[in-house]
Amino acid sequence: MVIEKVRGFRDIYPDEAEPRKKIFAVSENLAELFGFSKIEMPSVESLDLYRTKSGDELVSQCFSFRDRSGREISLTPEATPTVVRMLTSRKDISKPVKWYSFQKFWRYEEPQSGRQREFYQLNADIFGPNSPLADAEVIGLAASILDKLGLNGKYRILLNDRLIMDSLLKSYNITDISKAFAVIDKYRKISTEEFVAKMKEIGFSGGDIKSLLEYLDKQVPIDEAYDFFTDSISERTDRVAVSRFLDLLRILRKYSNDSFYVDLSVVRGLAI
Amino acid sequence: MVIEKVRGFRDIYPDEAEPRKKIFAVSENLAELFGFSKIEMPSVESLDLYRTKSGDELVSQCFSFRDRSGREISLTPEATPTVVRMLTSRKDISKPVKWYSFQKFWRYEEPQSGRQREFYQLNADIFGPNSPLADAEVIGLAASILDKLGLNGKYRILLNDRLIMDSLLKSYNITDISKAFAVIDKYRKISTEEFVAKMKEIGFSGGDIKSLLEYLDKQVPIDEAYDFFTDSISERTDRVAVSRFLDLLRILRKYSNDSFYVDLSVVRGLAI
Repeated sequence: MVIEKVRGFRDIYPDEAEPRKKIFAVSENLAELFGFSKIEMPSVESLDLYRTKSGDELVSQCFSFRDRSGREISLTPEATPTVVRMLTSRKDISKPVKWYSFQKFWRYEEPQSGRQREFYQLNADIFGPNSPLADAEVIGLAASILDKLGLNGKYRILLNDRLIMDSLLKSYNITDISKAFAVIDKYRKISTEEFVAKMKEIGFSGGDIKSLLEYLDKQVPIDEAYDFFTDSISERTDRVAVSRFLDLLRILRKYSNDSFYVDLSVVRGLAI
Repeated sequence: MVIEKVRGFRDIYPDEAEPRKKIFAVSENLAELFGFSKIEMPSVESLDLYRTKSGDELVSQCFSFRDRSGREISLTPEATPTVVRMLTSRKDISKPVKWYSFQKFWRYEEPQSGRQREFYQLNADIFGPNSPLADAEVIGLAASILDKLGLNGKYRILLNDRLIMDSLLKSYNITDISKAFAVIDKYRKISTEEFVAKMKEIGFSGGDIKSLLEYLDKQVPIDEAYDFFTDSISERTDRVAVSRFLDLLRILRKYSNDSFYVDLSVVRGLAI
């Protein structure tokens, strides 16, 4: 009897494990160089952790089950809820905290090309300072890893700012921000017609949609960002939020050339 | 609401992750130096894989569950069944094959000090040659890792040979070898009285037990093994098996001083 592997899981043979070793080593070494300390997380958590800390979509993707004593547990689908659990359960650890981890995660999604039910994820967090310097370190680490692997010029990191988007949407008199985010999140995945229809549903007028589309459509290189934000959009966006975001972009130039772009359609990971 | 971690799982904070990184790196680097190629295995398999390839005890320890489509799957409790599955599903890979892996495994056992439900395991296999040289490479890798971590003189690797034990037990007219192994496996965990009672149950006479106990009780340094096997026990053990085992022990001397001992009570991992 031949037992097959489970659907959505991959066997990694030496020819493929070899380049992966390099990716793993570069990632961990750069995280260390950036001053992050390694933590190791359990691969199993109570499903309740995701019910309270993650969105419904993530819970629906959990590789969850009941253990032999009937407890609902889940293979870890993401790092953040565990990192927060670990940090809050140790009152003796003083901030700032810089932690990274590099381990497997699992999601019960339909397997697609390049997207299996089991995958590795590097996670790097800074807890404590509310500073663009801290944001830049985490984003800069991601770019530095890709550059070190020889991918410079072959990828873009798209940046946006939650507070800027809040003020932008409010300038159109939108009150249900989270509904608007949910539509904008789909901007690059659906047709313009569909997008316009959905925006009208949540209260946008035709003229406002046209105005918003102009902003959403651009991917602005970070050295043009100052001009972009001091242009027409400046009347619609919070001055303090823009200033802080521009500080971040200025710091990021040190990390990687030509990799960072402002893209106001990027509103992912906003479970509310 | 505070969500606790799941029983039997550990959070590894930086102070503990730091020395573990060294253990991981030394293990992987030495495996590479010994000429093993890395593979990565899924962390989930069909429970049937263990039903057909492992013993009942292991299946009872599986962290197993039904996924959303009702399939019985399990977190991997050990490496070997997956390694064999991977090898047999690729007819194009020619032997000899030297593979290693270093990843998490899970067992649903009662958590004890130093023994959690989630743990890392280095696995190194050689497929192809039936040679004491291959055996020595795998055993020598284990000793070299421990020595490199500064543990020389602080551990013993206990060695035994299945064919020698078969011939030894047959010399006492024991036919149900697997039952005898199950009792011998407990030799160092139960009292001598209990051991003697159990051996009587499976057909040993009092005099034979006394004779066997003499052999089981010794831990013989490998440079005294030749004398041990050419002593009284030589009449009871298969000459070819002993000769091959002595070959292995001779090769092992190159790897680590004073770490290897012959111990005839070691009969673990013998699912039949």
